[in-house]
Amino acid sequence: MSDTLGGGAMRAQGGRSIAMDLKFYYAPMTSASRVHWALEELGIPYEKFKLDLAAGDQKKPEYLALNPNGKVPLLVAEGRPIFEGLAILLYLGERFGADKGLFPPPNPDRAEAFKWMAWGAVTFGEALQRYLRNSLDRFPEDERSPKAAEAAKKDLASHLAILNEALEGKEYLVGNTFSFVDISIAPAIPFLGRFGIDVSPFPNVNAWVARCIARPAFARVMQG
Amino acid sequence: MSDTLGGGAMRAQGGRSIAMDLKFYYAPMTSASRVHWALEELGIPYEKFKLDLAAGDQKKPEYLALNPNGKVPLLVAEGRPIFEGLAILLYLGERFGADKGLFPPPNPDRAEAFKWMAWGAVTFGEALQRYLRNSLDRFPEDERSPKAAEAAKKDLASHLAILNEALEGKEYLVGNTFSFVDISIAPAIPFLGRFGIDVSPFPNVNAWVARCIARPAFARVMQG
Ligand SMILES: N[C@@H](CCC(=O)N[C@@H](CS)C(=O)NCC(=O)O)C(=O)O
Ligand SMILES: N[C@@H](CCC(=O)N[C@@H](CS)C(=O)NCC(=O)O)C(=O)O
Repeated sequence: MSDTLGGGAMRAQGGRSIAMDLKFYYAPMTSASRVHWALEELGIPYEKFKLDLAAGDQKKPEYLALNPNGKVPLLVAEGRPIFEGLAILLYLGERFGADKGLFPPPNPDRAEAFKWMAWGAVTFGEALQRYLRNSLDRFPEDERSPKAAEAAKKDLASHLAILNEALEGKEYLVGNTFSFVDISIAPAIPFLGRFGIDVSPFPNVNAWVARCIARPAFARVMQG
Repeated sequence: MSDTLGGGAMRAQGGRSIAMDLKFYYAPMTSASRVHWALEELGIPYEKFKLDLAAGDQKKPEYLALNPNGKVPLLVAEGRPIFEGLAILLYLGERFGADKGLFPPPNPDRAEAFKWMAWGAVTFGEALQRYLRNSLDRFPEDERSPKAAEAAKKDLASHLAILNEALEGKEYLVGNTFSFVDISIAPAIPFLGRFGIDVSPFPNVNAWVARCIARPAFARVMQG
């Protein structure tokens, strides 16, 4: 990976605008896909660096120097490494997305964007992690509680009900146009079914996810 | 509480600027304190509505209509209810804080702000919740795992190490001035010690927290 790490990220830029010098570090089919999707929607130039998580690329010193968390996604923009998928979506939204109609303008729609994006990453995200950590074999058995998994499942259902209600009579979460707000939550939903969470009682959610993932940019992301 | 719920939030405004019509719903000594702190730093007018969580104010229909999550904090701004503490800090930061030097300007410092604020709420926040849920008596015993609590404690220590490193040679997290970025993480730290997490190996973190909580606005928040 050292060759693909883009060590030049911090170097002074030549003729090319530094603002456009975006380096995206990812692995396919991870939480990095949201950022990948946003970049594809923007249609702006960026460089991709694919990490092999199984081989431990994310724990190599040269990567940890950029992201001490040792996780994907990471975006290096304007010479600075930005970790956290949510932070990258906020940055890309404000910097490039608003001009392209992909991120709500300030305000109050921008405030609604913050609300749903934070809710997806914090409240929904915590319940999802809690469910997975308490149910999947990949976590140590003595760290798992079936009762905690049940409680997390109930929390996820009540979160889905909130989302379903928010989508009542609407095509998209904010401003009735597709935006990074939708990107920040929709990809988690198809994933839920595969882990035993029943999404069928939430028709607005299902219709919305279908609308979102029908976009050509999402198909490009799925190519890895 | 129905009297204090500020039902007029959605009504057309009279002479007063709608942008300044901020209604803040909170309970003392909760995650709402971050938002409270930010409002006090801004020094702009806002109305406070104190909820009695033990009495279940947060589950009353008129509150759920504003925040279906049934939690504090909530801010009603520009006629719209914004839930999630992180979202409210982002909104207040962008709308009022940047002009007052309390929220980094775009960009790249704004991107750094997003990075740490998302990291605090998502990565650090998840580990903290996981630790509390697996160790505190207030959660059902059959949903708790002592091994999971140990693992969460280790994760918290490695997160604190990342924060400590980020603060090396710096007074504040971003741009070397106090900002909402500091508010979004610092209040969690004193809390850790009370729950058995040793913060003493992280001197930069401790010095930074001390600097932050010495501010007069924080003292006002502690008054409830
Ligand atoms: N809160 C982080 C989570 C990132 C994350 O958990 N990434 C996973 C992939 S989905 C990862 O890189 N795992 C590799 C590892 O932990 O070694 C974000 O949203 O960016
Ligand atoms: N992710 C939410 C969490 C809010 C939260 O958990 N609030 C707690 C107080 S710290 C609450 O309102 N609890 C009352 C309840 O759950 O009934 C945020 O940051 O706003």
